[in-house]
Amino acid sequence: MTAMRKLSDRLSELADLKALQTLAGWDQLVMMPPGGAAGRVHQAGTLARILHDHATAPEIGELLAELEVGELPELERDVVRLARRDWERARRVPTDLAAELSKAHADGQESWQAARAADDFAAFAPALERNIELARAYGRCLDEEGRGVYQSLIDDFDFGLRTDELRRLFSELGSRLTPLVEEASARAAIEKPAVPREVQQRAVETIMARVGVDGESWRLDTSAHPFSASMARTDQRMTTRYEDGGIESLLSSLHEFGHALYELQIDPALDRTNLGAGTSMSIHESQSKLWENHVARHPAFATVLVEGLGAAGFEIGAGELHGALVAVAPSLIRVSADPLTYPLHIVLRFELELALIDGDLGVADLPAAWRDGVKRLLGLDVPSDALGCLQDVHWSEGAFGYFPSYAMGCLIAASMWEAMEREIGPRAEDLERGEVEPIKRWLGDRVHRHGRRLDTVPLVERATGTGLEVESFLRYVAPFAAV
Amino acid sequence: MTAMRKLSDRLSELADLKALQTLAGWDQLVMMPPGGAAGRVHQAGTLARILHDHATAPEIGELLAELEVGELPELERDVVRLARRDWERARRVPTDLAAELSKAHADGQESWQAARAADDFAAFAPALERNIELARAYGRCLDEEGRGVYQSLIDDFDFGLRTDELRRLFSELGSRLTPLVEEASARAAIEKPAVPREVQQRAVETIMARVGVDGESWRLDTSAHPFSASMARTDQRMTTRYEDGGIESLLSSLHEFGHALYELQIDPALDRTNLGAGTSMSIHESQSKLWENHVARHPAFATVLVEGLGAAGFEIGAGELHGALVAVAPSLIRVSADPLTYPLHIVLRFELELALIDGDLGVADLPAAWRDGVKRLLGLDVPSDALGCLQDVHWSEGAFGYFPSYAMGCLIAASMWEAMEREIGPRAEDLERGEVEPIKRWLGDRVHRHGRRLDTVPLVERATGTGLEVESFLRYVAPFAAV
Repeated sequence: MTAMRKLSDRLSELADLKALQTLAGWDQLVMMPPGGAAGRVHQAGTLARILHDHATAPEIGELLAELEVGELPELERDVVRLARRDWERARRVPTDLAAELSKAHADGQESWQAARAADDFAAFAPALERNIELARAYGRCLDEEGRGVYQSLIDDFDFGLRTDELRRLFSELGSRLTPLVEEASARAAIEKPAVPREVQQRAVETIMARVGVDGESWRLDTSAHPFSASMARTDQRMTTRYEDGGIESLLSSLHEFGHALYELQIDPALDRTNLGAGTSMSIHESQSKLWENHVARHPAFATVLVEGLGAAGFEIGAGELHGALVAVAPSLIRVSADPLTYPLHIVLRFELELALIDGDLGVADLPAAWRDGVKRLLGLDVPSDALGCLQDVHWSEGAFGYFPSYAMGCLIAASMWEAMEREIGPRAEDLERGEVEPIKRWLGDRVHRHGRRLDTVPLVERATGTGLEVESFLRYVAPFAAV
Repeated sequence: MTAMRKLSDRLSELADLKALQTLAGWDQLVMMPPGGAAGRVHQAGTLARILHDHATAPEIGELLAELEVGELPELERDVVRLARRDWERARRVPTDLAAELSKAHADGQESWQAARAADDFAAFAPALERNIELARAYGRCLDEEGRGVYQSLIDDFDFGLRTDELRRLFSELGSRLTPLVEEASARAAIEKPAVPREVQQRAVETIMARVGVDGESWRLDTSAHPFSASMARTDQRMTTRYEDGGIESLLSSLHEFGHALYELQIDPALDRTNLGAGTSMSIHESQSKLWENHVARHPAFATVLVEGLGAAGFEIGAGELHGALVAVAPSLIRVSADPLTYPLHIVLRFELELALIDGDLGVADLPAAWRDGVKRLLGLDVPSDALGCLQDVHWSEGAFGYFPSYAMGCLIAASMWEAMEREIGPRAEDLERGEVEPIKRWLGDRVHRHGRRLDTVPLVERATGTGLEVESFLRYVAPFAAV
């Protein structure tokens, strides 16, 4: 067997183990009865340990050393390049630290749940402190070039996306969006249509079928928080949730569709390699945001949405529905924010987590800093920590450097949408008929098929012809402030 | 860390990997969209290889050698005893043979599916021949004491159950049941009630809730063939199927409940050890058959069934329903056989697979031997191989030695039911009210809690006070022939 064949077999094995990890996680959130919880913690722990052992095997290093001296075809060069990156990063983290991290994240989540329920930040503070300490230790292990601990954490989610670039973009975003928020806040709130749960469910099924969700390669289930999970390129599982009297499920199901379509349209030649997955959190989020913001919130696509609702027995005009989907109303909670204010929630979290990791902000001062930030960016008073710095799960699980991808997704989606319309023409006429094939083809060619072969920044540059920028997004949201 | 602690950790890891294997299999049959099939084959293959590597690790042998020289408490002695057995058996099979077996089973299943659809036994014969050859090679690896190849195969499913004991029991069963079949065949057939699919589904949900199936530790889904899968002691997944105009789902759901309850009532102290699973296929099948034959087909429990059907909007008398559930009518297909003729289907398969493995019957002569056997045991003519020796999947997957457990389950269930009624009194009065707690308690104490600590034969002897025998079962079915 050649060295390349041996390496490929090992990488396929890792891909299989990751797919099983995805399955165990999906099952836990979607299918598992509560009685399975204790067992699943053990099963997931065992799988993670075995995956780590296989990912850090010395034999991979030997094969890489052998392959890196020779000439390889382009695809195999990418396989080796990413395998080297993944193997080095995995080996830099001592087993003891990995175990401590895993324990602290589990403890942190438990502590956070109780603290949020009791609106008691002080009860969560020690666990958060511990997570920050361990995140620094983890970041230092990965920080080979002295680029800073926070940069190392970012690299886990968006390899190569620079902290100073985020600083520049988010600062621009903050100063340019705040006046729009003020403008919008001066207007009367728009009442959202109260769509019954069963109607939403039937409408979502119809709408998903129109964008191409079939029983062959997809599932759509419900879970407490919508998410998507790729078991294999042609086995995409999405979830949504139906709350009585809302329309969120229309947006969230198309959001998850964007994630799943990305994985589905990766080049089949990358199946079971180390390249056969979405390249980063920001790009993944750009794909979900593209379908949520630019398709589901497109005035022309409202026709398709009202047809779906109508077939389920709920009558509403396309204009009225679209108005509700783009209504701007600053609010305290990130997950239910409108498309204009959403990135400001992220700007706040980015500023704070960067300061926490760098030691410029102490844990005890977080609640006050949060309140100041919400006032500055959204013009709102925060009445409690439960509605403030305790609202998100991320920091309790030790996920620092993850939040930025949510806002980057909004920006990149807007850049891509403009680039696409420049190339294949405005989408309004097609979207009114529910025709999304040209969009899927463009995304497939420019974004999806590459898998992990291109990192965030080069992928955006190739797909849009420009770098990371805020102007497209500002052009997208400006009209919502003036409605 | 002590040697016992190290061994326990390794056995827990194996238990976790097996649970993940169960999850992947359950998902494949119940949830996975068809597009996931190719990926799942790879994922399952990788998991099986890793499980085999961990199960045969030399370190386990070293720990066992160390532990076997000392004194151990009773539970740990059983852990070590079973770990030795499993480790020895796993190590006796060369990796190459395991890979060949796995390949031949996959090929065999594919070949069988096509051959059955085309009613073309000759198209399946080469794959069957190959499976038999490999089963012999596999059996020889495990046959350390020269007890015969077929005995080694049986040991995979029912360790310690002897081939000559099966021969004795099945010969007795054949000669004693055939006259009852003749008696029953002389009577007019009983029309089965045509219950619509949706009614069955609602009725099954009601009935399962009455025997204790809740959302905490159970799921009930549908699949092409009913089965049950234990993800963890308190995470039991059962499936059934609803066919329009049938009542099979009432029986099959209680059948699967029996399997799942067995796993649920194992002593929690055995969780994540090598002892925390049902001990054998025969005992497992005895538990499902106990609920199918002795509870669901009990005349008193018919009251509960008709209440369930009534609540779902289908009116039928308890007597009429019970009559349909125990009606005897010899038929060609094993899976839809009545309770009296069912074991005869197994007697036939046992005789034939024993002869195939021992070389007393050639593959080419199988169809004729099948037809002769069906005529002799059931008095029926077999019009085609699709309705004859091509009907079951087992041999195509290389599962020789598995069939006997189906009939042993019927026999053991009847023995246990009689033993239980001797001890706690007749069940009729309780069953009429849907009271099954005393049954669950008796089974929990005598059978379930032991997990793998007792093998088939000693477990039956302890639970019933007698050995393996046919009389209880014959007493159970005799009335059905005379109805």
